[in-house]
Formats: sequence, structure tokens, C-alpha cells
Amino acid sequence: MRIALVQLNPTVGDLKGNALKIIQFIEKARGLNCDLVVFPELSLMGYPPQGLLKSKDFVRDCQAALYRVARHVDGVGVLLGTAISDGENGLYNAALLIENREIVGYAAKCSLKALSAFDEACYFKPFRETDTLTFRGHRLAVAVGDDVYTSECRDADLIIDISATPYRYGQFKQHNDILAGIAKKMGVPLVYVNQVGGNDDLVFAGISRVFDGQGQCIAQARPFVEEMVLFDLNDVQQPLPPLREDISWLYKALVVGVRDYFSKNGFKKAVLGLSGGVDSALVACIMAEALGQENVLGVYMPSRYSSDHSKQDAQALAENLGIQYRVIPIEDIFKEYLKVFNGLPSPVGDVAEENVQARIRGNLLMFISNREGWVLVSTSNRSEASVGYSTIYGDMCGGLAPIADIPKTVVYDICNYINRNREVIPHNTLIKPPSAELRPNQKDEDSLPPYDVLDAVLSMYIDDGLSVDEMVDKGYDRMLVCKILNMVQRSEYKRRQAPLAIRVFSPVEKAVRNPVVHGYRWE
Amino acid sequence: MRIALVQLNPTVGDLKGNALKIIQFIEKARGLNCDLVVFPELSLMGYPPQGLLKSKDFVRDCQAALYRVARHVDGVGVLLGTAISDGENGLYNAALLIENREIVGYAAKCSLKALSAFDEACYFKPFRETDTLTFRGHRLAVAVGDDVYTSECRDADLIIDISATPYRYGQFKQHNDILAGIAKKMGVPLVYVNQVGGNDDLVFAGISRVFDGQGQCIAQARPFVEEMVLFDLNDVQQPLPPLREDISWLYKALVVGVRDYFSKNGFKKAVLGLSGGVDSALVACIMAEALGQENVLGVYMPSRYSSDHSKQDAQALAENLGIQYRVIPIEDIFKEYLKVFNGLPSPVGDVAEENVQARIRGNLLMFISNREGWVLVSTSNRSEASVGYSTIYGDMCGGLAPIADIPKTVVYDICNYINRNREVIPHNTLIKPPSAELRPNQKDEDSLPPYDVLDAVLSMYIDDGLSVDEMVDKGYDRMLVCKILNMVQRSEYKRRQAPLAIRVFSPVEKAVRNPVVHGYRWE
Repeated sequence: MRIALVQLNPTVGDLKGNALKIIQFIEKARGLNCDLVVFPELSLMGYPPQGLLKSKDFVRDCQAALYRVARHVDGVGVLLGTAISDGENGLYNAALLIENREIVGYAAKCSLKALSAFDEACYFKPFRETDTLTFRGHRLAVAVGDDVYTSECRDADLIIDISATPYRYGQFKQHNDILAGIAKKMGVPLVYVNQVGGNDDLVFAGISRVFDGQGQCIAQARPFVEEMVLFDLNDVQQPLPPLREDISWLYKALVVGVRDYFSKNGFKKAVLGLSGGVDSALVACIMAEALGQENVLGVYMPSRYSSDHSKQDAQALAENLGIQYRVIPIEDIFKEYLKVFNGLPSPVGDVAEENVQARIRGNLLMFISNREGWVLVSTSNRSEASVGYSTIYGDMCGGLAPIADIPKTVVYDICNYINRNREVIPHNTLIKPPSAELRPNQKDEDSLPPYDVLDAVLSMYIDDGLSVDEMVDKGYDRMLVCKILNMVQRSEYKRRQAPLAIRVFSPVEKAVRNPVVHGYRWE
Repeated sequence: MRIALVQLNPTVGDLKGNALKIIQFIEKARGLNCDLVVFPELSLMGYPPQGLLKSKDFVRDCQAALYRVARHVDGVGVLLGTAISDGENGLYNAALLIENREIVGYAAKCSLKALSAFDEACYFKPFRETDTLTFRGHRLAVAVGDDVYTSECRDADLIIDISATPYRYGQFKQHNDILAGIAKKMGVPLVYVNQVGGNDDLVFAGISRVFDGQGQCIAQARPFVEEMVLFDLNDVQQPLPPLREDISWLYKALVVGVRDYFSKNGFKKAVLGLSGGVDSALVACIMAEALGQENVLGVYMPSRYSSDHSKQDAQALAENLGIQYRVIPIEDIFKEYLKVFNGLPSPVGDVAEENVQARIRGNLLMFISNREGWVLVSTSNRSEASVGYSTIYGDMCGGLAPIADIPKTVVYDICNYINRNREVIPHNTLIKPPSAELRPNQKDEDSLPPYDVLDAVLSMYIDDGLSVDEMVDKGYDRMLVCKILNMVQRSEYKRRQAPLAIRVFSPVEKAVRNPVVHGYRWE
């Protein structure tokens, strides 16, 4: 039996476009004499569909798109992920087996998570149990998503897992070992077909794979590329060398997330503020890689507090990347605000004056966006977003925040990766102390702990869920830890108003919201 | 048996403060010779605790607060809502029966909803079944929240439902009839104890009640007030006249939601932009009622496009309410932006110039907020938030959006209620056509359908979940309906960055998020 694994890059909600792509892959697979073509979880609607599943119109149109696909299924079998009605008021997250223009069998997801990348338990009913489907004399144990971890598949001669596994940096080996372990334990081949590309805040790496009954990987699609790979159950295949995840994957994931957010929303061009600092430098690199240098505009907006090196660093970056570049001083507008509040066009030096500078910059960028059609992207990172070290309606402005899930220390790691062959990001940007430059000689570390300490504490809290006691046991100062956690809680209101971030670093299942009312204190 | 119903107004997360209040009510009830004191669902931590439940520190501190309360339980029984550990890694949403300083029994919530006011299924494990607890010779069927709808309570001589039921306008009678129906069907008294006050985006009406075995209400606490009411199982009590919900409840809910958001976060003073229009007028009334007139500052910020009546209406409103009032023209700052982009300080008349006016106003208000410590509130309503008829980082700025869940047509209804005795809101504000005044002679209805049509379509979609076909069957134009629904989908990115709204109008379980990537079109 010859099987095609199609790691599809669907657009969430675009039923017509997705159906068309699916039909094209089916026809291509038929041309290559495949028996079965396998698509990822919810690939007809794109993952995560979220609230669209509550729209009767959307669910009806899904059904119509499914019939449209089914009419093209001839001479080849198709296993397709989509939502199907249970005949009453509920939906299943299903894998449909289609043959000769008819749905001949189905399985559906049994174990629905309430707290995950997509709160699927809000929309789907759990299916009774993982099912085995018969296809051309083979017994296929079909699982949707993580059901494969727990499914019983006695008597099956092939396990198929259709999935939409959000990419999270550093997790490839562990997930790969689990899948290999299942194949080995069951002693039958396992086919894993994953979504690829970005949809909303999620990115999917693809890397659809086949493991043989010894748990060895014998077929594998590339990371972050929409493609189809074939394998034949009857052939003896050589094991492939294991893929090794490194920082290049994280960069690639951000680029793909941004690229797909833009292309799927019909956007082409991006504008961002360049400060000469490391965050805006990284975002500029991501945008240039994702959209092409000609589609990126960097704007340097100096104030009286901007240092000479900032302008040089911003300009050098723009030149190195070949992106468009403008300089717009904020001084005249800043003085008008000072006149309104201080009488004279001179500052008194309070936080209101610091913030209004960031907000003037936000307004200038949004003006360019509204007038010329560039989409503004924000340059916030996870460290500052976590503790609220940012100006709401200022540097937090943007339709998308490409690196808002990346800790500051990892921002440097990615920059160093980008600079591995030549100096794209000016060396000075990477070695100078971070500063918002909103008052004379301001440094981030005047207000925040050193970033290596801050990121370590944030990681223990966000990524690992440790208690304060557990952090103290690891050698961190209790007062400092509590101070950081209280900053996180107090800035919840800002994060509620933050742009969509590309989520590829923090654990998706921990993207919970704390209440904005902050009656709780760590002490 | 004498029972005290305590409709508590806890602060979410404030374990020490809530425990102290609970202890005070317990002592008060003991002083009144009560046998049992009943508190609402999750009252020790405040509802909705959200992601705090994922913090090990918080869960440990909850346990400590519970023991602190238990030490004060002497001579009276207490039924308290809080989270308890299942001994492994999970939590139950429990009702604990405490007597003589010890937890002598418990029940917990069985049916957890994934999509509701608080996504409780993310945090709690479902309990096996509703339990009956024995207390001083009585069999108490104890249910948490909506479990009371489905619980079996054979052999019980009293049903107790501890709840945190978010207030939703217009639902009182239906919910009351359900509770009365349960008491009548079971033939035993039903005690319903509800949280009161605001926490985050939710408001709780209280109105804790006792129904006798005929389903007649025989004891009842007031709406929106933290208080304790007593009743005695052995006394024969006269049925109370039924409460009738009207628009005053909706106004009261908004006031309570705002008041508690401010007081629980330690805020005292609010600033808002006054435009002379109906939305800012209503928000000013709510703020003055919630915080006191001396704690509210209205700022009128005219541009070249502001009409004379706007200034008169804004000023008259401020005078009628007795709030503080300032006028800050935006013209000089606007000209500086025009100079940057147009060369001359004169407009070309595009949307970028419209939006920057709203953003200058946002900056001025945030400047006042940052310098003087007033918290900015936004004046967005549900109609404009739904279709994105607002300037992001402009009029959407604010820590809280008091009326962002109120349709424009209902904004008028509440204003008329406020004006029932005297003209608080200037008559002219209520009769002039709505306008953003961002260009000459602009009217909302140049860009939007008339508000009565818009609100009808939005209500069918948001509140009732109708399909386009169903709306067309009701006589609405298909093209118009699709246009509105596509506007809703396209503005999802703005709502993601909107301030917290007080949610008292839309169904809480439908507060779902659509994807920002808008691959789906209604057509």
C-alpha cells in the first residue's frame, strides 16, 4: 500500500481555498499511484478554527466543502481531518475515510483538552473511543492528535495519527521519541501527518513522518514546508538520520508565523519602529526574511534623549537588510504636548513625559500604516511583556507582535544566529546595555533585574510552574522572585491589550490568563 | 434549624481579606444563634480565580486561608465554597462543611463547563456526583453552581446551591423560575447563595434566596448589596412578592462592576474624554455614581471638526453631574502631525488624519492619567466594538471599558432611565445623530447601517447564534447581514486589544474568540 502524507498549510476559515488545495493534492497523489492520501487534523477548516465553530453558517459551509472534496475522491482513498456533526447539536473532531466519492468510515478525537493551544473542549464532543478502520485489506488504527498516546490499537497493521501539533521550541526530540516509542511498542508502522505553517498565534512545523515497527523513522517531510511525501508499506526502507533541532528552527518558526499571518490576511508590507536596539533589530530581520526587504519599512524616531549610536545602529541595520528607512524626529510634537501640560515646551521629567514619547512614536507609525497601508508590527519581547516594562498604546502598538513570546536573553541568541556568517545586526546593538532612551542615561536595569536573572525567574514561573519555595531552593532570592511575580500579576491589564504574539516558546497549555483584579500578592 | 445566607463580595485572589470577611460573618451569625452559615461558590478566593489556580503558591495559600477560617468555626456550622486538592495533581470546586474547627464533609462540582464565564474545566476535575451531607440531624443536598439543575437529591430535607452566577440583563425571571421549579419538584426547601459585586469583567447580582417546598420564595437578599439574610427551617414564612427586573438593574450592574474594579485594584479616580455624545455621557454618569462626582474628570478635546453643540453638551453634562471638567484643544498637536506628513499644517482629509485625532486624544488622556493618577476609562459601546467602528490606540484607550458590552440602542435606554427625574444628560445629546466628528459633517450612519438595524443583526448573531438564512427569514437583507458579519470578523484584531469590558449583556458562554486570520467570509 502506497501512502501520501500531505502536510497541508491551510488558512483558518478559508474553506474554498483549503478544499481546492486538498483536491489538488489528491489528484497529484492519484497520479503517483497512491492508495491513500492522509491530511492533518481539521485541515479542511485550518487549525485553530476557534469561535467559527459556533457559527451555523460556517459549520454548514464546512459540510459543503467536504462534499466538494469527496466528489473528487476516485481511485484513491483519502483520510481527511474535519469537524462533523453528531446529528444533534454537537461536533466531533474527526478523521474521515473517503473512497469512491463516499465517506466510508470515520474516527474522532476522544480526549479533548480544555486548556491547550485551542480550547477544543469548548467546541467538540469527545468521541467514544479510538477506532480501527479497514481500508483495502489493511486495518488502520486512526487517532486524532494526542489520542495516539493512549489509544489501543490491537489488530491494526498501521497506526495513523492526524495532528495539528503547535510548534514549541526545544520539544522536537521528546515528541519524536514518543511517536517512535508507540510504533515500537505496537510493533507496527506509525504514520504521523501534521499541519504546517502559521495560523493566528500558532505555528506548525510539519515534519510529517513514518516510523516502522521498530520505531525507526523511514520517511519524513521537511520542517516548515508544505509538501507531500510518499512511502510504501511493502517496501523495505532504510532508517533516516534523526533531525536535530537548533536555534535556526526557532527563527524559521517566527518567520513562517509572520509570513503566513500577513499572506493569509492579504497583507504585503510591514512598518516598524527602529530604535537601534536588539528587539527592533531582530523583528526587522524576521520581517525582511518573511516579506522581502522591499516590503519592510523601518522608521527611526529620535528624541532629545536618543543617543548618537542609536541612529547609527538603526541606519546600519536598515542598510544591511536593504529595507526602506525613514527618520522622523518626535521633538516638535513632544514640545506641543509639553506646552499643553507644562506651559513651557520643556520637560519636568516624569513618567507621563516618558510614556508620551513612546505614544507619539506609536501615533507616527500608525499614521504611516493608515495612510500608506503598511501593517505595524510591535517589537515587544516576552521579558518586558511579562513584567509590563513597556508603554501601552506606545511601543505595544501593532497588529502582530512577532517576538512577544521570546525572552530577551533568547532574542540575543537568535540575533547571534542571524549574524553567524556576516554582521547583519550591528555589533554595537548586541553589546550595548538595553535602554528605552525615554530619559537621560536611562538603562533597563535601572528598573528591572539583570535580564539573565529576570528570564530565569520568568521561565521557572511560566514554563515550569515552580513555586517561590522551589525557586528559592534553586538559589534565587525570595524578595526578588516575589517582586518579579507581583510585576507579572500587576501588568496583566497590559497583556490583555497586547497584539497577537507568535507563540513558539512558552508552553501553549500554560497560556492562561490571571484575573486583572490583583488581590493576590506573592510575599 | 436557623440558616444564614451570606452573599459575599470577595476580591478575587485576596485570600487574607476574604478570609477576614468570612470570619466576621461567621461570628455575626453565631451571635444571632444560627446553626449554619452558607457562603457562595469559590468565595474564599473570589470568582473567577482563573490562572491563579495554576500557581502552586496560590493553591497553598488557599489551604492556609481555609485553615484560618476553620479555626474560627465553633458553635455554628459553615458551608464554604473553595478549591480543594484531590490529593494528587487536581483540584475540585468544592463546598466544605465545617464544624467544631474541622472539615466534616464536602461536596464538589460535577458538571464543569469549558465555555462559560470562567473556563472552569481548565482548572478543576469533575466530582463524581452531587452528595448529601448530614448536619445536626438534617440531610443537606449540596450542589455547586448549575449542578443544582441536574442533581438527584433523594432523602434530602434541604437543597443548598452555592453559586457564583454572573449577572446577565433580562435573565432574572427565567433563572428564578428554574430554582423555584427545582424546589417544587423535590418538595423540599432550596437555599441559593450567590456571590455579589464585580470581579474583573463579571458582575454578580447576589439576590440569594430561599424557596419553600412549594417553590415560593420565602427569604431574599437584596440585589447588588453584600449582606446576610437569615431564615429558620422550622418557621412558617409568608411568600415574598417576586422581584421584577428592569433597566435600573442593568445600570446598577454597570455601576457595581466599575466601583468594584476600582476599589479592588486600589484605584479612586477616573478620567474620560467627553465628546458631547451619548456614550461618553453614559460612562460619565456611571463613573460619578460609582466613584463620587469629585473623583471623576471629564476632558473635552475639540478639533477643527468639533461642532459648537458638542462643547455645550459636554460642559452641561459635567455641570449637571458636578464632575471635574477640562477643555484641551487638540489643534496645535494635530498641526504638528500634519506638518510631519503633509509638509504644511493643513489636512488632506484621509483616514490617517481622522485616526490621529482620536489618538492625540488618547495620548492627552493617558498623559493626565500617568501624571495625576486618574485611571482612564474607555467609552466604546458593543455596537461599535463589534464592527470595529473605533480608533485603536485612540478612543479604545483605557484600563476599563464600562459600556463595551452595551449595544448603542440600549445605551439610549439607560440614558433615558438616568434622565427619568431630571435632565442629567443634556436632551440634545440624546436627539442629535451620532458622529465621531473626525471630518466635516461626519455621521456614524455614513459608514454604518442605522443603529436599530445594526443592533438587531448583532443581537441575532451574538446573543442568539442565528444563521444568515434565519436572519433573512426574519426579514433582513442578506447582503446587509453578510456585510455586518464580515465587519465583525475583520475587526477581531481590534477586540483582542480592547480593554476589559463589564460583561452584563451578551451571553457569557458566547464570549468566544474567532481567529484573527479571516479566511472565512459570509456571502
